[in-house]
Amino acid sequence: MIVASAQPLATFVEAARARVDAALAAYLPSPPACSPMMSEAMRYSIFAGGKRFRPVLTLASADAVARPGGEQAMQLAMPAACAVEMIHTYSLIHDDLPAMDDDTLRRGRPTLHVVYGDGIAILAGDALHAAAFTLLAREPRETGSGVGPAELAARKLRVIQAIGDAAGPSGMVGGQAIDLQAAGQARTPRLELDADGVRAMHAKKTGALIRAAAASGAVMAGASEQTIAGVDRYATELGLAFQIVDDILDVEGVAGELGKTAGKDAAGAKPTYPALFGVERSRAMAAECISHAKAALEGAGLTEGWLPAIADWILHRRS
Amino acid sequence: MIVASAQPLATFVEAARARVDAALAAYLPSPPACSPMMSEAMRYSIFAGGKRFRPVLTLASADAVARPGGEQAMQLAMPAACAVEMIHTYSLIHDDLPAMDDDTLRRGRPTLHVVYGDGIAILAGDALHAAAFTLLAREPRETGSGVGPAELAARKLRVIQAIGDAAGPSGMVGGQAIDLQAAGQARTPRLELDADGVRAMHAKKTGALIRAAAASGAVMAGASEQTIAGVDRYATELGLAFQIVDDILDVEGVAGELGKTAGKDAAGAKPTYPALFGVERSRAMAAECISHAKAALEGAGLTEGWLPAIADWILHRRS
Repeated sequence: MIVASAQPLATFVEAARARVDAALAAYLPSPPACSPMMSEAMRYSIFAGGKRFRPVLTLASADAVARPGGEQAMQLAMPAACAVEMIHTYSLIHDDLPAMDDDTLRRGRPTLHVVYGDGIAILAGDALHAAAFTLLAREPRETGSGVGPAELAARKLRVIQAIGDAAGPSGMVGGQAIDLQAAGQARTPRLELDADGVRAMHAKKTGALIRAAAASGAVMAGASEQTIAGVDRYATELGLAFQIVDDILDVEGVAGELGKTAGKDAAGAKPTYPALFGVERSRAMAAECISHAKAALEGAGLTEGWLPAIADWILHRRS
Repeated sequence: MIVASAQPLATFVEAARARVDAALAAYLPSPPACSPMMSEAMRYSIFAGGKRFRPVLTLASADAVARPGGEQAMQLAMPAACAVEMIHTYSLIHDDLPAMDDDTLRRGRPTLHVVYGDGIAILAGDALHAAAFTLLAREPRETGSGVGPAELAARKLRVIQAIGDAAGPSGMVGGQAIDLQAAGQARTPRLELDADGVRAMHAKKTGALIRAAAASGAVMAGASEQTIAGVDRYATELGLAFQIVDDILDVEGVAGELGKTAGKDAAGAKPTYPALFGVERSRAMAAECISHAKAALEGAGLTEGWLPAIADWILHRRS
């Protein structure tokens, strides 16, 4: 059990990560339901040392809207937290493929296609994608959830729709396709993105799933429409700041800390915030987003809990 | 409206296909929700002249279990029918990639990656995959469905779980991974499949989604557990026959009718029924499955409707 009090964010995040890891280990399909290789391939990427930013955000959001019932809310939100992480992981597997970003290293380890070949990597990604939705439909079970069957079903369907929209052609996958077009990697005329275009691309590519992660926590916890809207405004700003900081970290070449090839964005002529605005202005933009994110929390009466501290963490992270 | 009477199956199938095509056109995301290229890429593969076997089966199953209320049942099942077709189409896009089966032609047209490049093809497949689950969570809407909100939500969640399981690591994607391993295309020791292994592989790779297509129709139509089980037994046999006939058609080299490179299975050393049992024995096995499928329908009291005729169609199809 995570006791939310005056303890520092690190304590909450560490405990939440451990719970997410345990839940993922339990939820991921295993033999004999799937083949040993498929199970190993999925686990190789899921347990590759990710930060678990998105599922921690889902749990923090569930906790924040349900205080003092945060513990039960986090249990209700755990399947959504894991599903978001499974979708995030599948997207990394596919993005790393030679047909896309062609990355051979992630978090200091060989990427999945380097280990199993491109075909199995595509399929392991597809497997995590499908398994995420199966999980969302199945869990949490009604028994012991403390929520009536009709209400629980309604929350699940809303979360499936939110996460599906965020992951699909209007969200993450759509943003990645625009990114490929802008990098001249699609067999279509190269797309020229201005500052607004880059912002819109990132809002889809990384922002949409971060928003869905936060909103899912609030929905599973039974938050009001007004509170869900506040969490969504917060997460929109948070997602933008997350991407700007990501771009800055890449430019600054902290390859060792990132565990991937630094400077890759510039080398691939990908449109980034530092390339468009310079590092200093980008830093100021990220800080401004975080300030807006906190204002959104105040407007929604969500100043208790970990959401404000998570915003600061995103701004100051080094990996 | 499809009037089910003594008309031949072809009339039902033609009308059902037209309705599925219209529903798919309405359900697929369009600009400005997604980019023009993403919309075009998804539609290129969805409207590539597929047989629509799976969605027709979903509608026929809904109709059969709900007679004489077949028309309303088919409307309830239409989103599931379309979602199954979207998932089937995404799987074809990914299977055709150079990293897997490396097919450049399907139904007489260049495959998606030939047109847009591998990266966009992977993403368009991912987009259809996510959009299928969003659709299942969203549609049918409660208003005018004739089903109460709690019951409708319960049916939707059951269908999402069935289709997700069928598409995921325990189903379609898991079967394709075993197929790649057996063909020596994974960076793991080559898998040797005996007859039982080939049967199990196909039960996952093609059988699972065919079963989910049929079961989803019955679930959305509000069938009893006993009836759903009967439909599932029918579809299990149907799916096996479908695959055996597919293998035979490939061996017989009806490339023109199939619109793809015939003899490709043998060339790629893929395990097939004719390779294991010869063409004549394979034909007899397919006929036996169809006979079992019809017996399952009789056991469930589902002799009215199109399901028996669909079984015959599968056995005698030439494409």
